[in-house]
Amino acid sequence: MANERLTPETSGPERTVISVDAMGGDKGPVAVVAGLVDSLARNPDLHVLLHGDEAQLAPLLAREPALTGRVTLRHADRVVTMDDKPSQVMRHGQGTSMWATIDAVRDGEAGAAVSCGNTGALMAVSMLRLRKLPGVNRPAIACLWPSRSPGGFNVMLDVGADVKAEASDLLQYAIMGASYARNGLSLERPRVGLLNVGTEEHKGRAELKEALELLARNAEAGGYESVGFVEGLDIPSDRVDVIVTDGFTGNVALKTGEGTAKLISELLREAFGAGLLSKFAALLALNSLKRLQKRIDPRRVNGGVFLGLNGTVVKSHGGADATGVSAAVGLAYRLARAGFLERLAARVASAEAAGQDASPVETGAAKPAGSNPEE
Amino acid sequence: MANERLTPETSGPERTVISVDAMGGDKGPVAVVAGLVDSLARNPDLHVLLHGDEAQLAPLLAREPALTGRVTLRHADRVVTMDDKPSQVMRHGQGTSMWATIDAVRDGEAGAAVSCGNTGALMAVSMLRLRKLPGVNRPAIACLWPSRSPGGFNVMLDVGADVKAEASDLLQYAIMGASYARNGLSLERPRVGLLNVGTEEHKGRAELKEALELLARNAEAGGYESVGFVEGLDIPSDRVDVIVTDGFTGNVALKTGEGTAKLISELLREAFGAGLLSKFAALLALNSLKRLQKRIDPRRVNGGVFLGLNGTVVKSHGGADATGVSAAVGLAYRLARAGFLERLAARVASAEAAGQDASPVETGAAKPAGSNPEE
Repeated sequence: MANERLTPETSGPERTVISVDAMGGDKGPVAVVAGLVDSLARNPDLHVLLHGDEAQLAPLLAREPALTGRVTLRHADRVVTMDDKPSQVMRHGQGTSMWATIDAVRDGEAGAAVSCGNTGALMAVSMLRLRKLPGVNRPAIACLWPSRSPGGFNVMLDVGADVKAEASDLLQYAIMGASYARNGLSLERPRVGLLNVGTEEHKGRAELKEALELLARNAEAGGYESVGFVEGLDIPSDRVDVIVTDGFTGNVALKTGEGTAKLISELLREAFGAGLLSKFAALLALNSLKRLQKRIDPRRVNGGVFLGLNGTVVKSHGGADATGVSAAVGLAYRLARAGFLERLAARVASAEAAGQDASPVETGAAKPAGSNPEE
Repeated sequence: MANERLTPETSGPERTVISVDAMGGDKGPVAVVAGLVDSLARNPDLHVLLHGDEAQLAPLLAREPALTGRVTLRHADRVVTMDDKPSQVMRHGQGTSMWATIDAVRDGEAGAAVSCGNTGALMAVSMLRLRKLPGVNRPAIACLWPSRSPGGFNVMLDVGADVKAEASDLLQYAIMGASYARNGLSLERPRVGLLNVGTEEHKGRAELKEALELLARNAEAGGYESVGFVEGLDIPSDRVDVIVTDGFTGNVALKTGEGTAKLISELLREAFGAGLLSKFAALLALNSLKRLQKRIDPRRVNGGVFLGLNGTVVKSHGGADATGVSAAVGLAYRLARAGFLERLAARVASAEAAGQDASPVETGAAKPAGSNPEE
């Protein structure tokens, strides 16, 4: 079983190996290496397989004594750029650092992968090399959203893997999102809500009404609590832990939230910059403002996670700096250590079995035979 | 022509009459009357037809000497509540204050209507009593969004009239939204963008690619500049003046933006409330913070406008207080004074003609014959 083969090499008490793409981010390999320094300092049993151009990377690594023995450099000739089309990368992407990063997970060398590169290309390569989990129709991208929930974050998916989703896909998103919240946010029984334009049951699109029933019926097998429809206002609230929606709506909502936060923080900066008194006030309030900034800093929640593949892939923001890269690597590390992939696969299989024979079984940690096509 | 009939009675140099629903808002008639006091003080030639329960309203009006002679009270026995279903209100809504408020516009007594009531019911009654503008398939609700654009606001539509939209509907939203921006925000040639999950032309849903072509082809007749696809990040930006999307996506985006702003302002309040130094700083920064709050205060941009009907209807937020009601009445007043409805009808007719004979004609202010089915 993959479970047994993976354990001694890529995770467990000795060390957890994460595969990292050093290329393709807007800030280049310098930001990635700086992020690794931070992340390796925080996680003593983390080891990194770093993929990219040796001529650029070797000198950067040599300058950081703390990385000695903890980063294995793997040379890759080519780089996937932000302009490359996913379909081209699928056909001609072999030899790129992105491809090699994913293949290290496929080959069981690493427990999870991280890349700051082109999202569409990363999803395409991940689909091609890792393949979908048995029982999953559409993989999804899940993000963390600063919220009023006790853990400080809610999970939302899909935020951009696919522009559409049927009712059955939304059910799988619920199961996968709940599993992610359980393993990534330590919530035993996450509250799952379905994003709609109102919370009344008669509102919204036809597929949402169908999905609402599916979500309620599979709550037991999926290990979540179904809270029904939620609205845009609820995304950052304490009413829900996991928000389920199609990739079009989710992507628009995510970017609208980012845009709103950006506008407010710019206006706030201008307000505090206007006049001597305001500047003095800003100085006094510095600590409070820093705490707030830290709370909603998008760099600290950096990392969309691809769910529904035979391998965990974390997509870091293209413009991530060292803090952002460290957050994404840290997330990949936690998920790999938690055995997240095996737990997710078990949940999907368990819900599928429940749907087939209508007798849901709670098998959170057990891995059913045949759930990994690589075997 | 309705134009001529409307002018002397409901708008023009002498006075502009607005029909207002006093009932159905969360804060009741008290907030509405307080809002009228503010709005009438700001607009010397405004006159209000106020619909609702005389027993409640007469004492409230009697307490405000400034309203004498400027508010005409019209008794209505019944009220549409937030729980009433639109279909029920369409069948049995006659005699409610909402119905009477819309009928005053239908009958040419008022230049525009304002209600804080149930959105679904208000749209249903407006559709039934005012009917759609010739050439319009799906009416839309347009909102204002605080932004980096020079006027401080962008227009977004549809934010909830209909959960779906075809490419041809999105084109009509573009034309109607541009007309609204021209008359409501004084932008001569608004920049119109189509909301998508990326700005590359190959991205998104099929109907969006089709709509992109339609928008570009009709820019001349619609009197706007087509800027192509925009993302959620662009909604509050200076890249675009009018954001076009279906009512499902638009509603989710609007409420997500509201939720994000609410979370940040709460966290900010907590940050400034934590510790003596921070409280002192908040005091010093009070003016700056007040300026910021005013800039993004949702009450000051209160009022979704229903576009595509034979009459202008402003939907105020259900929870609007006096400031919110005043903003909504002020918006209705400005639109009525500008002859917005006639201009909008002319644009829609002109774009339709251009689509038919492929020779766009610029007739921004001229009213084509037959654009009002009431005649």
